[in-house]
Amino acid sequence: MPQDSDLNIALVGCGTVGTGVVRILQSSMESMGQRTGRTIHLRRVIVQNVGKPRNVELGDIPVSSDIRTVIDDPDIHAAIHVVGGISPALKDVTRLLQAGKDVITANKALLYEHGAELFALAGQLKRTICFEAAIAGGIPIISAVNTALTANRIVSIEAILNGTSNFILTRMLDRRETYDAVLAEAQGRGYAEADPAMDVDGTDAAQKLSILTQLSFGTRVSLRDIVRQGIQQIELLDLLVAAELGYRVKLLATSRLANERLEVSVQPTLVRANRAIGMTSGADNIVSIEGDAVGVIRLSGAGAGQMPTASAVVADVIDYATGRAAITFQSILRVLKQKPIPLQPQEELSRRYYLRYTVADQPHVLADIADILGRNEISISSVRQDETDDVADESGVARLVIMTHRTTEGRLRNADSEIAALSSIRGDRIRMPIAD
Amino acid sequence: MPQDSDLNIALVGCGTVGTGVVRILQSSMESMGQRTGRTIHLRRVIVQNVGKPRNVELGDIPVSSDIRTVIDDPDIHAAIHVVGGISPALKDVTRLLQAGKDVITANKALLYEHGAELFALAGQLKRTICFEAAIAGGIPIISAVNTALTANRIVSIEAILNGTSNFILTRMLDRRETYDAVLAEAQGRGYAEADPAMDVDGTDAAQKLSILTQLSFGTRVSLRDIVRQGIQQIELLDLLVAAELGYRVKLLATSRLANERLEVSVQPTLVRANRAIGMTSGADNIVSIEGDAVGVIRLSGAGAGQMPTASAVVADVIDYATGRAAITFQSILRVLKQKPIPLQPQEELSRRYYLRYTVADQPHVLADIADILGRNEISISSVRQDETDDVADESGVARLVIMTHRTTEGRLRNADSEIAALSSIRGDRIRMPIAD
Repeated sequence: MPQDSDLNIALVGCGTVGTGVVRILQSSMESMGQRTGRTIHLRRVIVQNVGKPRNVELGDIPVSSDIRTVIDDPDIHAAIHVVGGISPALKDVTRLLQAGKDVITANKALLYEHGAELFALAGQLKRTICFEAAIAGGIPIISAVNTALTANRIVSIEAILNGTSNFILTRMLDRRETYDAVLAEAQGRGYAEADPAMDVDGTDAAQKLSILTQLSFGTRVSLRDIVRQGIQQIELLDLLVAAELGYRVKLLATSRLANERLEVSVQPTLVRANRAIGMTSGADNIVSIEGDAVGVIRLSGAGAGQMPTASAVVADVIDYATGRAAITFQSILRVLKQKPIPLQPQEELSRRYYLRYTVADQPHVLADIADILGRNEISISSVRQDETDDVADESGVARLVIMTHRTTEGRLRNADSEIAALSSIRGDRIRMPIAD
Repeated sequence: MPQDSDLNIALVGCGTVGTGVVRILQSSMESMGQRTGRTIHLRRVIVQNVGKPRNVELGDIPVSSDIRTVIDDPDIHAAIHVVGGISPALKDVTRLLQAGKDVITANKALLYEHGAELFALAGQLKRTICFEAAIAGGIPIISAVNTALTANRIVSIEAILNGTSNFILTRMLDRRETYDAVLAEAQGRGYAEADPAMDVDGTDAAQKLSILTQLSFGTRVSLRDIVRQGIQQIELLDLLVAAELGYRVKLLATSRLANERLEVSVQPTLVRANRAIGMTSGADNIVSIEGDAVGVIRLSGAGAGQMPTASAVVADVIDYATGRAAITFQSILRVLKQKPIPLQPQEELSRRYYLRYTVADQPHVLADIADILGRNEISISSVRQDETDDVADESGVARLVIMTHRTTEGRLRNADSEIAALSSIRGDRIRMPIAD
């Protein structure tokens, strides 16, 4: 933590978020000075392509494509790192720390994959890493877990952490459109990436959930520890049936204590329409945390986007400038050493489920499926086989929706592999837990 | 900020919140140690009546009714102050600060009435005051304003800050019950105070809003600066009409920038039923803050109650133990020196309104009222005079509901004093703004 009144920072990456950061830094010089008692100077900017025009006025600030100009500048105290991906981010952040710079990063994938080694390195070098912007954009969830909720034993986290998926699911239901149509529109408008795989298959949400889980429960979970399903196979029919039953389908990220084991999942999930999570629409994110003392608190807002993310980055800069961030980071390093809560094996996660099959419209199909479920000790609570005008039915094909009583993920997986082998099954098989 | 590894605290007040604090301190010794790197000791407890039995085991900790035992103990670093009211709280907190103790308080009325002098005294003596628990219980709104939102110019705050009022309004609509019936039930169950005046007349919410407003906009507002109305006159009919139109009635606390002036009000308000605020039910609180960069973020949860409030108090203790709280308080002191945004005169607040009159069921009543509104340049958007089975109608009396186009509080007050003088008016006149 630098103690003099001038704070010199560098910006590594001047894309969408980076230009947002520059704008806020330029417009709030005075209020930042009031809040921190220091003068914050943006001294250097590192970009990939120096010649590229940018929507921001950098004035006399030296712009370079060589991060060594920051690493070798002894006057720079900290770097704002707003570049995605692992390479060269890992190398760059490592070198920045080694050169004695503190780092404020918005790179969630980097923290998911290499957080442990970067945190250890920073701890060793007595440097600080700030990362509020890496999870849920402008929603101060890292701050809540590390400060407001510290008097609690956290019992559960339920969250919508991927705005693109939530936008698609919301729009499909509102406009009665197919997944493909909404995705194409979202890409056209720039809400979804050209390659949206990480958003819609749950990878992005799972990486964020992994970081939140470690901070909240002390347990490191990798992607393969997480029961993970994407939204790509969800059809409008699923959303309509859920809505009729009083639910919304959300890509829900959950970490929950159950019998002193941790259940971690990212799955399209039926959530009651009148709960705060069920009502979170469009690209918004929400995090609902239950603590043993405070009960449930909810934080929601824009989980991504230029200015919300830039706002979180600059809040980290201010927190850093006051010296608070250094204290928080030391506290995080201590907390991460606590004894982790063991993971519940995926097969043992126990929930109620929504199952949907596309089947040949022929005799004995339901009997076959019900037989397999029954032999796997999965109890059916309701069955429906509706035709709706909203679904383009291929001829001779019907959609069968089954709601189960509480059962385990393992039983369902066993049943599913048997059902998949039935000759009457056509296309996707959908399995969504129900959050009550 | 004490630097040694042992932190000695005293608890002043061991009522509902105080015993909650003791319980959390006792159960989370280990995790607090991990988070802070220090050992936190509860060294003394001050109560009004030493002989009274308490639901908590204090072991060897000295219990006294004399706060001087804390003030005179040089080993005590900080006091947790969980006593309500102004006297002796003001004197006690002043003496604690003067004796070199830092103070963690949950006393919102004290901060509203004497915050300025206590903050100045603490600043002068280089002491720290923590007060997360004073506003919205377990919801970390003070932390959000002082850390996460610091990169933003705050544009508006809309909040439900009084759980009792929200419980009453929610229950009236859900159960189709009268104000009096629900209030009696809430008192019987201990949700509402024996004297609920400060809750239902908006005083409690206005005091909290005043503190939030000063932290967010730099402007000190006293109760008489705030357009303030309570919920005592709200009838079930009002809630039902609002619901039919797609609204919920909430005791909404609002601070909003409009043309570089600050509009501050606490009023029963029609809020769209599908907005997060409209859906906040029971005793929950919600704070929705709009920043120029982050957009709208929302925080919700239990705004009061033993363990949520105790959770916020202990989070402050932890924040204090790490040294972060001292930095935050210095930052707050600097921010409070910023140039305040001038207040909008009450008469100039401009909104759409819901008006409801109980009138004699006789000719020309509507014409009289419409004439008065028209002469005051208040434009009517809709009128209804329904009878519903849910309302016990006194004979010869009708209820008239008028929705207006956008107009000012001043025009409505003028019109209201004319309407009050009409011989056809019976009983209460209701005026509620509509939040869109």
